[in-house]
Amino acid sequence: MVAQIDTVDMQALGQRAKTASSALRQFDTAAKNDALRAIADAIDANSAAILAANAADMEDGRAAGLTSALLDRLNLAKRLAGVTADVRRVAELPDPVGIEFEQQTLPNGLQIRKRRVPVGVLGVIYESRPNVTVDVAALALKTSNAVILRGGSETLRSNIALVDTIKEALTSVGFPADAVVLIRDQDRRYVAELLKLSDTVDMIIPRGGNRLHTFCRENSTIPVITGGIGICHLYVDDTADLDAAVNIVQNAKVQRPSVCNALDTLLVQESIADQVVPRVIERLAQDGVQFRLDGRAMALANGSDNVQPAGEGDWDIEWLDLILGIRVVPDLSAAIQHIQTHGTAHSDGILTSDPASMERFLNEIDSAAVYVNASTRFTDGSQLGLGAEIAISTQKLHARGPMGLAELTTYKWIIIGEGHVRP
Amino acid sequence: MVAQIDTVDMQALGQRAKTASSALRQFDTAAKNDALRAIADAIDANSAAILAANAADMEDGRAAGLTSALLDRLNLAKRLAGVTADVRRVAELPDPVGIEFEQQTLPNGLQIRKRRVPVGVLGVIYESRPNVTVDVAALALKTSNAVILRGGSETLRSNIALVDTIKEALTSVGFPADAVVLIRDQDRRYVAELLKLSDTVDMIIPRGGNRLHTFCRENSTIPVITGGIGICHLYVDDTADLDAAVNIVQNAKVQRPSVCNALDTLLVQESIADQVVPRVIERLAQDGVQFRLDGRAMALANGSDNVQPAGEGDWDIEWLDLILGIRVVPDLSAAIQHIQTHGTAHSDGILTSDPASMERFLNEIDSAAVYVNASTRFTDGSQLGLGAEIAISTQKLHARGPMGLAELTTYKWIIIGEGHVRP
Repeated sequence: MVAQIDTVDMQALGQRAKTASSALRQFDTAAKNDALRAIADAIDANSAAILAANAADMEDGRAAGLTSALLDRLNLAKRLAGVTADVRRVAELPDPVGIEFEQQTLPNGLQIRKRRVPVGVLGVIYESRPNVTVDVAALALKTSNAVILRGGSETLRSNIALVDTIKEALTSVGFPADAVVLIRDQDRRYVAELLKLSDTVDMIIPRGGNRLHTFCRENSTIPVITGGIGICHLYVDDTADLDAAVNIVQNAKVQRPSVCNALDTLLVQESIADQVVPRVIERLAQDGVQFRLDGRAMALANGSDNVQPAGEGDWDIEWLDLILGIRVVPDLSAAIQHIQTHGTAHSDGILTSDPASMERFLNEIDSAAVYVNASTRFTDGSQLGLGAEIAISTQKLHARGPMGLAELTTYKWIIIGEGHVRP
Repeated sequence: MVAQIDTVDMQALGQRAKTASSALRQFDTAAKNDALRAIADAIDANSAAILAANAADMEDGRAAGLTSALLDRLNLAKRLAGVTADVRRVAELPDPVGIEFEQQTLPNGLQIRKRRVPVGVLGVIYESRPNVTVDVAALALKTSNAVILRGGSETLRSNIALVDTIKEALTSVGFPADAVVLIRDQDRRYVAELLKLSDTVDMIIPRGGNRLHTFCRENSTIPVITGGIGICHLYVDDTADLDAAVNIVQNAKVQRPSVCNALDTLLVQESIADQVVPRVIERLAQDGVQFRLDGRAMALANGSDNVQPAGEGDWDIEWLDLILGIRVVPDLSAAIQHIQTHGTAHSDGILTSDPASMERFLNEIDSAAVYVNASTRFTDGSQLGLGAEIAISTQKLHARGPMGLAELTTYKWIIIGEGHVRP
């Protein structure tokens, strides 16, 4: 059996992480990068034990009848070298902590500026991928944040092996071991208790499905970064380059259908529906896509056997699979109305060559990422130049869309006077 | 009796505000400024009716035995011209909405940038000042946000008169009246229901005491901006200019003792305590300040009759009154330790002429506003160049310290391609 520690007293656990987060502030960028490299080296050196723990998790998973997709997520065997390469890459990224901005001297001579500082303690709740354990620890450490991790039960042995290795590496370079804390008891009540640790934890990041995000938002007294649910749309108008449009639709649906930025619903302007709908169906059918069509699209589908009429709720489903809804709409207004009604404000785009339509779409669609003539698959920190990504936010405060290192910081005001008093 | 409307169905009320917030996005800065001026004009034109409503609130307040301080907060009679002047001043401020930043073209040719957009719908819960009704409505409108207001019951008539006037003005210039919605039934269950409207409300701003903030944080499924509690510290070290230090301490404590950025505890380095403590007591005694002193400070107080020994809990009290705690500490480390233990991360400062001490204080004190050689009373949007202030945040996500117009916006990513697909 796995050791049951770290969990008896969640208050104490939060306090340990908070104490570690204060201690982390004394380390400069070079020291933090050294610690990251020490972690990568330690994982490499300890890979046999880590992979043995992972093999035990895999065996339990097979015995429990996990799907091959879930077992693949769980499997570290082919992935561990990539995990440590990612940690070394995080060490190379610029450090946002300490950057000062909005400097000014007020008319009264007060010098003011804002300085980027760590958030403090992060609580990250995630599911079956043990590589997330290392990714998140590295991003937290790079930004001088302590982190409390709560992973999925099916990867507990892997997570314990990884976190113990990380803690040893931290200790070896003089960093506090409590900078990375794992909740080692999988009882769900500890998740609920984590969400109430507002005295010590500053930010909750759930990484998982809709239920996890809703549970966190409804039960947390700590600010929660919700996200991850993307019902994504593309609208093709009658000025679009149709070859490019079909390519983009194919990429957005097919390149990786299981993720949140994949296309769910294609909206087509009525006046070009007879050109677009049959071509999209023909092209994406080659990738095994099944279609859910409104009445007008059905009439253009030429009896293809991979189509069926869209049901009432089909516009409100994040497919996460090779399924695409297609709806024919009279114009841009109707497309915007559809997206406002059925979207999740994640990633939505217009395919057009008309500047006025583009500008109106950019103004009126209030999604985290709004696209013109590009695939929605780019909503990803690594694709948008962030270097790394901890989550994709679909809520509006603090950060929106892909969150990188800077989004794991906050700021403080620095105000320097020469005996200034308020009149 | 006051009309009971707007409150039967909070879901519907949230939806109305959300619909108005979408409609607000079509108005440009000039139109929004015209609407603000129309509101100011309407309040001026309707001042007799507004002041009559306010007089009725005052009469009820006197009958209910409100303190003169509370009655003063409630009173609009001398304040209404200032309120409309403030609205006209908001019209003159720069509009953050639509500003684009972090523009770049990626190596693959994708053009990306972020654009400032309204948060959407704000929920603001506040207490007895009816001027807040107009202030908040103006700041929300300037940033294209709709707002749901819930004021104190003792100002309900005043708030209804003000909001009805605002709605008339909005309608007269073609703006949606539901951009400003008042909860007109004071039953507290509607506050609880407001906090659950996460489908339509994007941000909750409580303006009031600790209990209100805690209630919101514990009951809201919507992100809450908590703040407003300031146990503020100044630390005087043995390199400080003592004349300047005494001035700053006096200003921070006395200039307006009832507010969150007023000084609560003075920490004095032991080696200069005999010079600082008697001078501070002598100077501030002239303003009627009472002192709570630790043992070493008591020994230096020369038997003044406005001092008493500090009780155990006195370092954890936000005085909001002419009371000052003084504690003698051996050095900077002890001062930092005290602030980390007893502070609320609002406004804390060091009075020093030593650059190393200054830099260490700025690094290790993680408060929303960290000061060197200046009064804590500057933690205020109007003092720090924001032009206006909706709240002072002491939580860490989204915004910290004084929140102005920009902090009532979020951003969206705009991604423009030329047929880009993800490889």
